[in-house]
Amino acid sequence: MSVTGPAGFRAAGVAAGIKAGSKRDLALVVNDGPQQAAAGVFTTNKVKAAPVLWSQQVLKERTLHAVVLNSGCANACTGPEGFQDTHATAEKVAEVLGVGAIEVAVCSTGLIGERLPMDALLPGVDTAARALAADEQAGLDAATAVLTTDTKPKQAFQEHEAGWSVGGFAKGAGMLAPNLATMLSVLTTDAVISGDDLDEALRAATRVTFDRLDVDGGTSTNDTVLVLASGASGVEVSKEDFTGLLTSVCTDLVRQLQGDAEGVTKTIDVVVRGAASEADAVAIGRTIAEDNLVKTAIFGSDPNWGRIAMALGRVDAEIDVDKLEIATNGVTLYAAGTKARDRSEADLSGREVEIVVDLHLGEHTATILTTDLSHAYVEENSAYSS
Amino acid sequence: MSVTGPAGFRAAGVAAGIKAGSKRDLALVVNDGPQQAAAGVFTTNKVKAAPVLWSQQVLKERTLHAVVLNSGCANACTGPEGFQDTHATAEKVAEVLGVGAIEVAVCSTGLIGERLPMDALLPGVDTAARALAADEQAGLDAATAVLTTDTKPKQAFQEHEAGWSVGGFAKGAGMLAPNLATMLSVLTTDAVISGDDLDEALRAATRVTFDRLDVDGGTSTNDTVLVLASGASGVEVSKEDFTGLLTSVCTDLVRQLQGDAEGVTKTIDVVVRGAASEADAVAIGRTIAEDNLVKTAIFGSDPNWGRIAMALGRVDAEIDVDKLEIATNGVTLYAAGTKARDRSEADLSGREVEIVVDLHLGEHTATILTTDLSHAYVEENSAYSS
Repeated sequence: MSVTGPAGFRAAGVAAGIKAGSKRDLALVVNDGPQQAAAGVFTTNKVKAAPVLWSQQVLKERTLHAVVLNSGCANACTGPEGFQDTHATAEKVAEVLGVGAIEVAVCSTGLIGERLPMDALLPGVDTAARALAADEQAGLDAATAVLTTDTKPKQAFQEHEAGWSVGGFAKGAGMLAPNLATMLSVLTTDAVISGDDLDEALRAATRVTFDRLDVDGGTSTNDTVLVLASGASGVEVSKEDFTGLLTSVCTDLVRQLQGDAEGVTKTIDVVVRGAASEADAVAIGRTIAEDNLVKTAIFGSDPNWGRIAMALGRVDAEIDVDKLEIATNGVTLYAAGTKARDRSEADLSGREVEIVVDLHLGEHTATILTTDLSHAYVEENSAYSS
Repeated sequence: MSVTGPAGFRAAGVAAGIKAGSKRDLALVVNDGPQQAAAGVFTTNKVKAAPVLWSQQVLKERTLHAVVLNSGCANACTGPEGFQDTHATAEKVAEVLGVGAIEVAVCSTGLIGERLPMDALLPGVDTAARALAADEQAGLDAATAVLTTDTKPKQAFQEHEAGWSVGGFAKGAGMLAPNLATMLSVLTTDAVISGDDLDEALRAATRVTFDRLDVDGGTSTNDTVLVLASGASGVEVSKEDFTGLLTSVCTDLVRQLQGDAEGVTKTIDVVVRGAASEADAVAIGRTIAEDNLVKTAIFGSDPNWGRIAMALGRVDAEIDVDKLEIATNGVTLYAAGTKARDRSEADLSGREVEIVVDLHLGEHTATILTTDLSHAYVEENSAYSS
């Protein structure tokens, strides 16, 4: 179950012919209400794709009737013509659904710099509208239609005991990083909640979930996370309760993104403890997570903690090398300014690796999720556009 | 010719048994004067190896009689005992040469976290002292003894028409980055120059050479560049002339480091033009140079300029996407906010790739040198310590 889990939503995912072959490449998520509250967070990259510029604008009203998403083309770096393509896409969805274009968000993912094949996309919107359904299969179809180099769809759904729920899907495999760490995600809820509360809850949830996944330091031109609230459960929720469940659903999706990142052979959790501030903890975790020498060592199942020490030493953060402690998979390898247990005692041969850095300087912690740097990552990314 | 090119210097490189097998692993460079001016620049990493802490201290006097260097062990993260090992190494060299220990700099490179095998190193100093010579072979032996995963020694030598010269060697293959972009380099000159001028010249030269090579974003715990002046030519030089020739020698060495970086199949020059400030130009160049998606695309000979746009968009610098221009190997692929010539027109199949980003915002430029991200890089770095 994903976006169609909560009441009040229909979805569809169809093959419009944007991608070669007959793969699903166009998704539609429709909020049938009774409410249409919405919020979104977007890439911080200065080079923003046309659909990001469009969706940021329409989200100012905190109202969305529908989201249309395509894979196979990012519609980024495409100039005014690319923006017109996004606008025309929203107009088409609006016309088919009988709503206003400013109530339609647009998301695109795929190769940067190419124009959208509008002659395939616009008829695809009709096909998608006819396929709209509220069942589990429809949600899965939508989650599938947004995939690029992902190997499987990522869906999540959780119910609150008070009778409301949050669902969602996400896609993202490479170019995952600060801030946000996904390319696209759509979340839905049948809770009764205002647009402003939805916005605050989304920012709080993504800050500790999507923003803390960092596969390769890249930040996409298209990163978008949207949340839509239908109010169909009739249950009014507190912002705190909603933020809790939303964060939990986002965590589920982020773990799936981490596990399906490009070329992943190992997932790595970088846990930073005892930092002087949360900003320090995040900065240190991110630098370790992005360090190619750390990532290749882990690919080789090698607890080469010297590279972890090297990586954290170049962060602009408070560090005392004599208090610092580094452990991998539960074995402390560095402590009190020198080598602790021998690296041969730390077994990194499994798929899950945990790096724990304790600075012993304060109370702040952060966990950054990443993956190893493998031959498969190099292979996928050296051949992606050709 | 390298460190023994300028008059007044002797060098040696011997196999002391620090590395397995009978590879050269200990180098000595001696300044026979008449002057012993010296200067050094060191890693900005907060985790500094013992030899860096030692050499920074002795360089405060701007005087060096000798430099002793070893490969096979970085002597980093080794606590007070590691510092004592460095101190003992300097004492041993001082004793053998009949100078003070505070006139002896120490450099180490290799695996982080392991103690130096002093029972091999100390007798090695005797062997090296006996092997000291002023000829070309001695310089080559020293340049060879500092190598780790480098495939060949890097040496440079240039003469000024006024009768003085600058020589040097460098080693470095991975973990190259800001600031400095090498692990170790020793430069020599027979010019007559004060320690203070030498220091200023070295900072000016490394800022635009070693500091602009960025292979993988790493910054070593051991990065050191030293320059020693013997005054043996008897020619007094101006700071400007000296900085000029020193920069030229450093450029030569940096190009060799770039060409021999770990796993390199292509060298990439990232040229940033038209930036609002030099800091912006450097930051943009560095971010592109460190971006794994750009580096893997180039490995695949793929002019995927969208990834270049993505990378520069995440820099905290002044950028106007509508003025931005991106070219690879002379073909403009993005201009005026949209796609220009087709990517198929840009041929990246050769070993040398140039990425030119023109921001059209100001007069500032910077060139960052990097390499592609290949299977060989992953292979070498996933197996280095094991």
